Amino acid sequence: MADTLTRPGLVDRLATIAGARHVVTDPAALAPHLAEGRGLFHGTALCAVAPGTTAEVAAVIALCHAEGVPVTPQGGNTGQCGGAVPMAPGGVVLRTDRLNRIRAVDPLDGTITVEAGCILADIQRAAAEAGAHFPLSLGAEGSCRIGGNLSTNAGGLNVLRYGMARDLTLGLEVVLPDGRVWNGLRALRKDNTGYALRQLFLGAEGTLGVITAAVLKLFPPPRPLITAMVALPDPEAAIALLRRLRGAAGDGLTAFELLPRIALDLGFRHMPGGVEPFARPHPWQVLLEGAGPGVPDAVQAALAQDMAGGGLADAVIAQSGAQAAALWRLREIAAGGHQYQEGAIIKHDIAVPVGRIPDMIRLGTAAALDELPGTRVVAFGHAGDGNLHFNLVQPPGMAPDAFRALTGAMNRRIHDIVTGLGGSISAEHGIGLLKIDELERCRDPLELDLMRRIKAAFDPAGLMNPGKILRPA
Amino acid sequence: MADTLTRPGLVDRLATIAGARHVVTDPAALAPHLAEGRGLFHGTALCAVAPGTTAEVAAVIALCHAEGVPVTPQGGNTGQCGGAVPMAPGGVVLRTDRLNRIRAVDPLDGTITVEAGCILADIQRAAAEAGAHFPLSLGAEGSCRIGGNLSTNAGGLNVLRYGMARDLTLGLEVVLPDGRVWNGLRALRKDNTGYALRQLFLGAEGTLGVITAAVLKLFPPPRPLITAMVALPDPEAAIALLRRLRGAAGDGLTAFELLPRIALDLGFRHMPGGVEPFARPHPWQVLLEGAGPGVPDAVQAALAQDMAGGGLADAVIAQSGAQAAALWRLREIAAGGHQYQEGAIIKHDIAVPVGRIPDMIRLGTAAALDELPGTRVVAFGHAGDGNLHFNLVQPPGMAPDAFRALTGAMNRRIHDIVTGLGGSISAEHGIGLLKIDELERCRDPLELDLMRRIKAAFDPAGLMNPGKILRPA
Repeated sequence: MADTLTRPGLVDRLATIAGARHVVTDPAALAPHLAEGRGLFHGTALCAVAPGTTAEVAAVIALCHAEGVPVTPQGGNTGQCGGAVPMAPGGVVLRTDRLNRIRAVDPLDGTITVEAGCILADIQRAAAEAGAHFPLSLGAEGSCRIGGNLSTNAGGLNVLRYGMARDLTLGLEVVLPDGRVWNGLRALRKDNTGYALRQLFLGAEGTLGVITAAVLKLFPPPRPLITAMVALPDPEAAIALLRRLRGAAGDGLTAFELLPRIALDLGFRHMPGGVEPFARPHPWQVLLEGAGPGVPDAVQAALAQDMAGGGLADAVIAQSGAQAAALWRLREIAAGGHQYQEGAIIKHDIAVPVGRIPDMIRLGTAAALDELPGTRVVAFGHAGDGNLHFNLVQPPGMAPDAFRALTGAMNRRIHDIVTGLGGSISAEHGIGLLKIDELERCRDPLELDLMRRIKAAFDPAGLMNPGKILRPA
Repeated sequence: MADTLTRPGLVDRLATIAGARHVVTDPAALAPHLAEGRGLFHGTALCAVAPGTTAEVAAVIALCHAEGVPVTPQGGNTGQCGGAVPMAPGGVVLRTDRLNRIRAVDPLDGTITVEAGCILADIQRAAAEAGAHFPLSLGAEGSCRIGGNLSTNAGGLNVLRYGMARDLTLGLEVVLPDGRVWNGLRALRKDNTGYALRQLFLGAEGTLGVITAAVLKLFPPPRPLITAMVALPDPEAAIALLRRLRGAAGDGLTAFELLPRIALDLGFRHMPGGVEPFARPHPWQVLLEGAGPGVPDAVQAALAQDMAGGGLADAVIAQSGAQAAALWRLREIAAGGHQYQEGAIIKHDIAVPVGRIPDMIRLGTAAALDELPGTRVVAFGHAGDGNLHFNLVQPPGMAPDAFRALTGAMNRRIHDIVTGLGGSISAEHGIGLLKIDELERCRDPLELDLMRRIKAAFDPAGLMNPGKILRPA
């Protein structure tokens, strides 16, 4: 889409700051920065600029602030909610990919200092090379950038033990909406000096400023490790197992992923490399991992006891790294984008108190089928954190657009159940553009009022990633 | 001190809300609510009111908001920085002690819902009775109230494993400065629905609203447990030990407390119940604790290896609960208020990156002695978190007031070193009244500007705990 608003001289001035070859205006080159992967949102921008340093980011933002130009920060552009799609005419996409230095690794103090454009997998690798462990791990880790992970408070596979991106962050460097730079790059475990500024920028989806660098926590490598797949009759049995394992292994459990039969079946149909893990198919399975001295023994003993007691239908424990990788491949297959090969999908990323996971699956499935019989409910994911990806796949043979037309109705049905269970309509993906309406519908107006006050306090001109999280005032 | 400002009718209207016997105006009864334990600050107030429900708190705050009356929330009044001392003439002290119900305990989901006035030890006890563990633990736990712990983001003895009060909190109920009630009592592990409101109220010392209830995290009981005291030649050896133990036991280490010789010596002089833990005195010791399957074995093996290698001077491992309690008694003795029996003390609660602890002790000691030869430096505490209580005890025989007169100079010396090491001038105690000047001196004005914007956004009238953290505008 051609941007209808022109800003005389702006592109030249951006080129002076960041270098002409780092300012993109050519429509073909600009196009990838105006949309997101699923094609849900198409935006517009005058140009995309890729500054190479924090000082250049600050100069870009200061210029845009002075000129009243909207700025949309964009990392790997892998977000699920459209948070990085520029929507305001005449605006600038601020790409972070040249801010890709790992500034320091201190495995002894357990910290790594990275710039916003570092790819998540590169940070994991740098930590491992230094003999340490950076636990944030998620599907897009090969292309997502840490600035986006922090700005969306990313979750993923290891939240159970290590927490969200928020919990992994000790310090931040942020360029504020007026171009000033906040150097909050502290490597401190404790710091009670006033309001929690860092916490505000984490998860703010770039609406309060641009994160340019961060000090992240490193951990000792998770050793020894146990990886197992367990077959279960129903979600209740999964939650009961989670509780027994936490009793036996304490915080040693690092992952607890629930996978329904249909997720595996659809995966096997469309993706290579999957092998049925058990002698016969089971309705539910859990992929679990634990780590730490004594943890494998404790988990194995608890599983053996449960098998003997009849609580588990079956279990396989990986005996090698290759077997563990094969079990994780099943998780990937269950979650993969292959679901789109079945047609349209209406996705939800919801959280409820952990013990309500079975209720959520039961009530949510009933509601989706009531709304449209034949809908295939693929509810899977981070059950150990109370988080499910509650995907609704269209009935076979239906016109995809006809199913998509039910998005609003399905969202309301699912989110009403979530709200009734004391849950959240966005567990780990954020709000972006996708969930603004539902956030307004499901949250107390008082809460939205407080958020608007924060936005106005930090970005009175409303130029930082406008239109995300909150409807513009 | 008699309050000079009268508010006709206010006391009667407060009595109508909370009941006449819960509004205190009698000077003798009011006095304990106008000062704090160390006698550093003496405040003033028209009255103290103790509402019995969240609705009554909301009515009190709404009334005060309408009448322009300042409100200072006060829990157990055990804070170290004067944050609960009412300073604005004509104001009201809002006591939380009648909000003392434990609303729910869910050991299976790992949550406990408590009102702000619950005493910390009562929450620990309720968790234990339900077979779970609430890990927040600190010296004042027998009298401090959880609302104050959350409002100051309390730390304490188990931060190494479990984090600060912030990290232990899933949900909050808050009465805002205008009397509206925010029900954020969610029991969710993941919730990415906009700005981190909860994080703002945590650690805000009651300046953005009054926390009236919270959903807190519970954990499996720390079992099996190992408690040990280790003798070391210097702080460098302590940090080296910390790193080895984290390598061996992962996150199984729950406490790592550094105690210098002088802390034990002063403790033995003034407090009963302490026994030298080793055959001969050592310059430094660490009290450490670990928990979880496999952790005691891993810690014991690492200690044995270090003893054999000469890295440790000596070590005792508790063989019973009574022996563990005796070791913890030494920690209490080392930290106790007994230091005041030596005269005046200038205290600092500082944090640095963990690896800089030895530098901090070396540089801080040199600076204190340079400022006043004979000053006794008692630097002890949560070294595993990079947090030291850097207490300066006056030279023997000096007039206490003469030593106290050095407070500003000593603060600047110590805090400059902290800042130079990338540290924090308040690790866990907060700012309150005590550290406002030093916060202004040590922090980037930009950071203070952002904090002022937050304060203005939440409390435009400036009536919530005025004068704390930030100087009134």
